[in-house]
Amino acid sequence: MTSRSWSQPAFREAARSIAATSHRLYQNGWSPATSSNYSQRLNQSHCAVTVSGKDKGLLSEADVMVVDLQGNAASEGKPSAETGLHTQIYRQHPHIGAVLHTHSMASTVLTMHWPERDRLTLAGYELLKAFAGIDTHDTRIDIPIFENTQDIDQLAKDVNEKMQRGEIPHAYLIRGHGVYTWADTMANCYRQLEALEFLFAVEVERSKIGGK
Amino acid sequence: MTSRSWSQPAFREAARSIAATSHRLYQNGWSPATSSNYSQRLNQSHCAVTVSGKDKGLLSEADVMVVDLQGNAASEGKPSAETGLHTQIYRQHPHIGAVLHTHSMASTVLTMHWPERDRLTLAGYELLKAFAGIDTHDTRIDIPIFENTQDIDQLAKDVNEKMQRGEIPHAYLIRGHGVYTWADTMANCYRQLEALEFLFAVEVERSKIGGK
Amino acid sequence: MTSRSWSQPAFREAARSIAATSHRLYQNGWSPATSSNYSQRLNQSHCAVTVSGKDKGLLSEADVMVVDLQGNAASEGKPSAETGLHTQIYRQHPHIGAVLHTHSMASTVLTMHWPERDRLTLAGYELLKAFAGIDTHDTRIDIPIFENTQDIDQLAKDVNEKMQRGEIPHAYLIRGHGVYTWADTMANCYRQLEALEFLFAVEVERSKIGGK
Amino acid sequence: MTSRSWSQPAFREAARSIAATSHRLYQNGWSPATSSNYSQRLNQSHCAVTVSGKDKGLLSEADVMVVDLQGNAASEGKPSAETGLHTQIYRQHPHIGAVLHTHSMASTVLTMHWPERDRLTLAGYELLKAFAGIDTHDTRIDIPIFENTQDIDQLAKDVNEKMQRGEIPHAYLIRGHGVYTWADTMANCYRQLEALEFLFAVEVERSKIGGK
Repeated sequence: MTSRSWSQPAFREAARSIAATSHRLYQNGWSPATSSNYSQRLNQSHCAVTVSGKDKGLLSEADVMVVDLQGNAASEGKPSAETGLHTQIYRQHPHIGAVLHTHSMASTVLTMHWPERDRLTLAGYELLKAFAGIDTHDTRIDIPIFENTQDIDQLAKDVNEKMQRGEIPHAYLIRGHGVYTWADTMANCYRQLEALEFLFAVEVERSKIGGK
Repeated sequence: MTSRSWSQPAFREAARSIAATSHRLYQNGWSPATSSNYSQRLNQSHCAVTVSGKDKGLLSEADVMVVDLQGNAASEGKPSAETGLHTQIYRQHPHIGAVLHTHSMASTVLTMHWPERDRLTLAGYELLKAFAGIDTHDTRIDIPIFENTQDIDQLAKDVNEKMQRGEIPHAYLIRGHGVYTWADTMANCYRQLEALEFLFAVEVERSKIGGK
Repeated sequence: MTSRSWSQPAFREAARSIAATSHRLYQNGWSPATSSNYSQRLNQSHCAVTVSGKDKGLLSEADVMVVDLQGNAASEGKPSAETGLHTQIYRQHPHIGAVLHTHSMASTVLTMHWPERDRLTLAGYELLKAFAGIDTHDTRIDIPIFENTQDIDQLAKDVNEKMQRGEIPHAYLIRGHGVYTWADTMANCYRQLEALEFLFAVEVERSKIGGK
Repeated sequence: MTSRSWSQPAFREAARSIAATSHRLYQNGWSPATSSNYSQRLNQSHCAVTVSGKDKGLLSEADVMVVDLQGNAASEGKPSAETGLHTQIYRQHPHIGAVLHTHSMASTVLTMHWPERDRLTLAGYELLKAFAGIDTHDTRIDIPIFENTQDIDQLAKDVNEKMQRGEIPHAYLIRGHGVYTWADTMANCYRQLEALEFLFAVEVERSKIGGK
């Protein structure tokens, strides 16, 4: 464990926020079978993140731990295997305060059913205004799709490079796996995630309708 | 703020009614990502309306404010950007007591997937009897679809003109955005909205079925 | 009101049972917009039935009243317009103790999308064992579809004739409107209704899948 | 009843675990109309199992009983008709501690709509990692489909033979009926079942989409 440079009240508050958000995400059906992981920044060097392998519908504050932004444990517990994808975002974006990763049916269908697609484009929806910096429906956002891998270090590097080129403004997908999104606060991150999952589901619905 | 011409108990009662309705609408999945807005008339010159940008699944009475029927704030808070679409209805129809606007997957799919359609027709359903003034399934209702815009003042004018011509009896849709409906009481408005969202979803389901 | 021949405790118990069942049915999405009505037999001459036009997600014991088996009010309140379809069943079948009518998306889609169909056949499902008198999946049940009408007296007569010919063993559908089913007890009636709505939804899902 | 060789506290704990799990499964819509049955091992010779024909949304600890691993009642109650499919697994696998059987729309659609299929293959999904012994998405699992029958003894024999040949590693389906899965603990079994039902639903969704 690294030397303690984070405040216990801030950690408690983050753990409470993560657990409450977890219950909402699970109820929406986006975090089945212990999948998904969530985090909230504590300060410039540490964040709170969900412990590996917990039931997201039953998540308690005790299932949240602290890691430094290199992903090393800074409190008891084994962090989620995908912690490196959270810390990459906090290192890259100092103003980002929360990261949510979910695993919904819609994101799974959209990325598995068209294996050749490397991005999902969402265009013309009023709900695009839920994303940071967007104030009109008359626009489009691209969400890159990364191939799935169990090599999280490599994936974090690939994401980082693309992010540095400014090509991942709001969120990214991993094929057959789910979505990552981030924002300054947990409330804004939850709003953005709800918008993403809503629009993913709308895209799936539209793909079922023949003869436009 | 305009001079206070509304009673505090009436406002409290309206705020309670709006918050309770909000939780039901959010649970139904019709108000994701801080979308949607709801209002209830207080008297001939004022209504209570949701504050801009609130999470509809967590809405409390403190997230409701008062505006006059020109849309000017009459209590603390920033009213929803679409307040003008609520006040237009109250000005036009003195007997209307509640307005609900939701943002469902079904209304989004129906209006985005067929961009050339300028109305949705619902015909032959028993649930048409949920609309004010209809007492048989053996009828049809037309719901006009307006193009989406961020110019709410212009949209309010367009809606008002069409409404004055009697062409919007029960509800209207905005493309890629959602539905507006209104009734004398909040209970009747909620009933009408449930009927609309149910029938929108039925229409989406039917559009997925091939080979009638 | 007819002379009182029913016991107040039995009515209270029935009202409680109907209200509890109503909340479950509403949560399942099968009773939107004040649609649906439910009843429970009190004795050989009276039953408890939902009052007309109530929100089924908020139904309380006060929203249940007593009618005789000719449909005349025997306590305060205005019975549901479709009360005659409940009392027809109690008159015809002395052993029936509960009748449930719901209004789901699946039953609406199945009856509206194929207007020429006059029955729905369910075959080969394990869940057929949920119906009274069926103990194998290796069978089929026919559910007649009646055309919708606002003339409930006539519809009750048509149902009665078909029932007397033994052609409505478990349930019937009304086009664009919903399903009626009945059983000796409310618990058995709820089980049968859950099976019906599950199998209707399965049939809708299958109709969406191309290229078997 | 066989002589009592199980501890009452262990049974109470198992009954509590089964009832809590039942409510979650029912809420997910996977156990309608009194279908489904669940069990938890007590020791090398007995398990706790749901009583026949109970409403899974209302299941209480009193609706759970003890049977020996030949399926004979060891406490009051009539065990589920499919108890033999639970005890077969406990006899075959001494390390298995819980068995869950559900009856979802997705498993019903997948097994009924393609009557010639004798297995379902799930490949490439991240959620495959929820299954015991799998640590990558880059794999596939086969889930055999047995024909439905009311002869549970015969079905248990058929399952046992296939299991002894190592051909049922994680779960099996019964046509038009549902899925059986098992794990060392109830928490792991629930996780595995959530993964199965999620992936079944994803497969149904993909089957609705034309023109890949």
